[in-house]
Amino acid sequence: MATEQSPLLDHCPSSLPGNAYFDENWYAREQCLIWQKEWVYAGRLNDLPIGKMRPLKIGKMGIMLCRLSETEVVAYHNICRHRGSELCRVEQPLGKTISCPYHAWSYAAADGHLVSTAHATPTADFHKEENGLFPVATMLWNGFIFINAADEPSPFIPDLGLETYDNWPMASLVTGHKSVRNLNCNWKVFWENYNECLHCPSIHPELSDLVPIYREGLMSESERQDWSPRKTPGNALKEGAVTWTFDGQPCGPIFLDLTKAQIKKAANFVTIYPSTYIVAHVDYVRIVSLVPTSPETTQLTAEWLFSPATMKQIEFDPSEVAAFASIVLEQDAEAAEMNQRGLRSPRFEAGRLMPQEFYIHNFHQWVRQRLNVN
Amino acid sequence: MATEQSPLLDHCPSSLPGNAYFDENWYAREQCLIWQKEWVYAGRLNDLPIGKMRPLKIGKMGIMLCRLSETEVVAYHNICRHRGSELCRVEQPLGKTISCPYHAWSYAAADGHLVSTAHATPTADFHKEENGLFPVATMLWNGFIFINAADEPSPFIPDLGLETYDNWPMASLVTGHKSVRNLNCNWKVFWENYNECLHCPSIHPELSDLVPIYREGLMSESERQDWSPRKTPGNALKEGAVTWTFDGQPCGPIFLDLTKAQIKKAANFVTIYPSTYIVAHVDYVRIVSLVPTSPETTQLTAEWLFSPATMKQIEFDPSEVAAFASIVLEQDAEAAEMNQRGLRSPRFEAGRLMPQEFYIHNFHQWVRQRLNVN
Amino acid sequence: MATEQSPLLDHCPSSLPGNAYFDENWYAREQCLIWQKEWVYAGRLNDLPIGKMRPLKIGKMGIMLCRLSETEVVAYHNICRHRGSELCRVEQPLGKTISCPYHAWSYAAADGHLVSTAHATPTADFHKEENGLFPVATMLWNGFIFINAADEPSPFIPDLGLETYDNWPMASLVTGHKSVRNLNCNWKVFWENYNECLHCPSIHPELSDLVPIYREGLMSESERQDWSPRKTPGNALKEGAVTWTFDGQPCGPIFLDLTKAQIKKAANFVTIYPSTYIVAHVDYVRIVSLVPTSPETTQLTAEWLFSPATMKQIEFDPSEVAAFASIVLEQDAEAAEMNQRGLRSPRFEAGRLMPQEFYIHNFHQWVRQRLNVN
Repeated sequence: MATEQSPLLDHCPSSLPGNAYFDENWYAREQCLIWQKEWVYAGRLNDLPIGKMRPLKIGKMGIMLCRLSETEVVAYHNICRHRGSELCRVEQPLGKTISCPYHAWSYAAADGHLVSTAHATPTADFHKEENGLFPVATMLWNGFIFINAADEPSPFIPDLGLETYDNWPMASLVTGHKSVRNLNCNWKVFWENYNECLHCPSIHPELSDLVPIYREGLMSESERQDWSPRKTPGNALKEGAVTWTFDGQPCGPIFLDLTKAQIKKAANFVTIYPSTYIVAHVDYVRIVSLVPTSPETTQLTAEWLFSPATMKQIEFDPSEVAAFASIVLEQDAEAAEMNQRGLRSPRFEAGRLMPQEFYIHNFHQWVRQRLNVN
Repeated sequence: MATEQSPLLDHCPSSLPGNAYFDENWYAREQCLIWQKEWVYAGRLNDLPIGKMRPLKIGKMGIMLCRLSETEVVAYHNICRHRGSELCRVEQPLGKTISCPYHAWSYAAADGHLVSTAHATPTADFHKEENGLFPVATMLWNGFIFINAADEPSPFIPDLGLETYDNWPMASLVTGHKSVRNLNCNWKVFWENYNECLHCPSIHPELSDLVPIYREGLMSESERQDWSPRKTPGNALKEGAVTWTFDGQPCGPIFLDLTKAQIKKAANFVTIYPSTYIVAHVDYVRIVSLVPTSPETTQLTAEWLFSPATMKQIEFDPSEVAAFASIVLEQDAEAAEMNQRGLRSPRFEAGRLMPQEFYIHNFHQWVRQRLNVN
Repeated sequence: MATEQSPLLDHCPSSLPGNAYFDENWYAREQCLIWQKEWVYAGRLNDLPIGKMRPLKIGKMGIMLCRLSETEVVAYHNICRHRGSELCRVEQPLGKTISCPYHAWSYAAADGHLVSTAHATPTADFHKEENGLFPVATMLWNGFIFINAADEPSPFIPDLGLETYDNWPMASLVTGHKSVRNLNCNWKVFWENYNECLHCPSIHPELSDLVPIYREGLMSESERQDWSPRKTPGNALKEGAVTWTFDGQPCGPIFLDLTKAQIKKAANFVTIYPSTYIVAHVDYVRIVSLVPTSPETTQLTAEWLFSPATMKQIEFDPSEVAAFASIVLEQDAEAAEMNQRGLRSPRFEAGRLMPQEFYIHNFHQWVRQRLNVN
């Protein structure tokens, strides 16, 4: 995606207004127009066994994920059409039908059509064919499952472009470590933090030591005044380091098919609003996802993915590898909560973005568009 | 109440809209138009000693019950007319006057008129006769106390008709066991569960074993296609059982004056919306009552009533008798919470009632009428 | 302030409507029109060391207090102008600049002007001179710090008049004891309780024993029918007592410059709405302050101030002195919570004030004026 132009903003735009971060009505609009309309991360295919179903929550919206076969995952709203009972409470075996635990109505697992109303005997005005489970679209991409609850889901092409992960054996990776943290901030505050590195020198000493350019508050060389796309970028990491671990050494074999540029870059990011970003390193992959739980709280999940070969190493401990990025993520979480505490004040109207915060501006525009606000 | 007509609905009506179960405004309207207007259960006369007063809460509305004499119970809003202080915090002795613990204003216990403003010396524009306690209507029925906070209470005749309990020595029964549980559901969800037996086969294995017709999802023989009011109903319980206990055996002497039909039926239900249902068995009585504590939470209370003769039996343990229905009630509570989790989804619009759910439809119409919605 | 006229009200006015004590919108208006506009107590100058800054919260509004020098305290909104981060989390050293922990923007401690945007390089449309910290006015009065977040703060002259504390060595006193309690009531309920003594006989047995006139529900002799300003008031306390302690004896040397009237009065009150009252005794001073934390919760803080000479006495225990007024304050707190539980009822419309409650009426008028309601 290299371009001749500098990515820096040519002015300092206003950030979102304060109420975007705590107001109940703003939050309700986001639930409706973003979280119930966009592609949202729903877990790794490898972590949902064939013949199992599992519930998940996006805000108040309950979804069931059903793994039908090696390649098929379908999803439905976790609601019985009879009187709205929850269908699936915990991960459980999935047969040909999904049976409601309340009144035993059953639905075909494969397409959700209503198979039986059990002891109830509906009259002719009740049309079985109109009373199947509400479907939710699913998408498999590099072994990641995404769902979309819109009536007519948009294509799975995030606005900012998807970096290709073709050179990673992504779908075959195994989840070796997972962490969940509740953030005391609006979900957008976390994204704003993610989208700039001006905070790196203040907040991330360990990371700034590993990635020299971060010490200058830059995300990449392209932010420099004298940058040119014709220059070959150097190694992103400090001398001797090849990946994001405490000692910079890989935790297992390096993925075979990476290009020199991908190896030099060391951290290959893909952002998929509103829920997820993925960072592919030379030896492992990390996926961070979030889901709002209220206007001022957010659930943050991070997963670390490794090749089976790496996992099989004697005395390999995925949590040791995860410890490095966990420290960085905890620093980001605390910064986001500190930001929330400040912008919650009635005196805060809106912030000003710096030229280096072009990704935040893009994110704000993405939000404004969906909510139809200026 | 036997009639030639089948009670089954001739169509499948819509249930209440999703927001009826969680929306703050809907809830506020219900508080105002149902809970502050209808007859609500307030405890057993036998459990409020003569010369005692006791506070109770219906939503945010605080009430004092005052037992004046053997036969008289009066109720007032638990509010001093001076500056609104709570008058009664816990059950306490009741004299001729009720004295405010804040500024010592006192009111006549018998009719609530203002007796004294203590150290305060009101001017002539303050009319003592207009500043008595706000009265709340009371009703004694079979030893149960009901209250009604409406300015002009409707007669105590629930729409669905009151089964007579004349053959039970109801007023003389003693409360032997009581349980309280907080439900994570809207109060109406619990009533919907109560009003149908389609869930019995799925949810209540023990009860369905005791009451054979429940295994078929039916509440009574009258729901069968070939039912005729001229048929004599058989025993409701399985062979050898006469009451709702684990072994089907009575926990004490059977009430003397019951008719054969009442004995055969084994569970004689009376429903008194919005707060209460009563089940009279051949050997004991159960009263279940609820009160909303927020749009999505409800407090559920169950009491088990026994004759003094039953209570006096050597080694009689009321909690053992209560254990059977407690299991059933816990199953209902969990089903109601499961239902709430599902219908809380923004995707839920409304359910569809089955012909067997005629009592739910009646309940929904009762609610709609009071809230003046379609 | 003695006047020929009786302070008693000549009628019994209505108190504030019930929703003033729990409604979210009413509360939001109060935050905006009272708490963000009036002078609010922010601590003792002696308790904020030179060269330190400290955060405090008034509702959702975060403030930083900065002690620049012996005599200078300034305050700012605790918000970075960049993207709204909180600047100060705990009491900490204060240099010439205040640096944001998020992106290292720095501001001059003395006047808040923006000194540096650190790694960010704003474009020309960003005017540094317009992006300083938002100032908050401060006022020092007798060693007490007050802040005012209004754009154009009103003069620091509470409507009810400020009693002079010139004869107390107020600014040199030391905080010897401090207590904090969360009240389950609206902040105004606590003020109403403070503003009358009709509750003293019921609620405060120890205090009514010490201050004989309180046993009659009077705050002062001027409330008597036969009172005349020409009469010399007697001692306020019972025979032998000179201050508010369990035995009525002073806890240290009596302040030297008090007048006979001040000594006789024994408790010299100053009220500074909306946050604070101060009581100056002959041997120590007490300051009680409150801040709303939600419509139905309030944080109450009490501080006991002593002369250095008193503090230096061998085996002097300030908490023993504090114990007396702590009992009284706890009684008031429980009364306020009892009042809140009652007036929270939907049946409560408004109370009626008694002629003796002229201070409450003044307070209500003060509130009504600011909210522009009748």
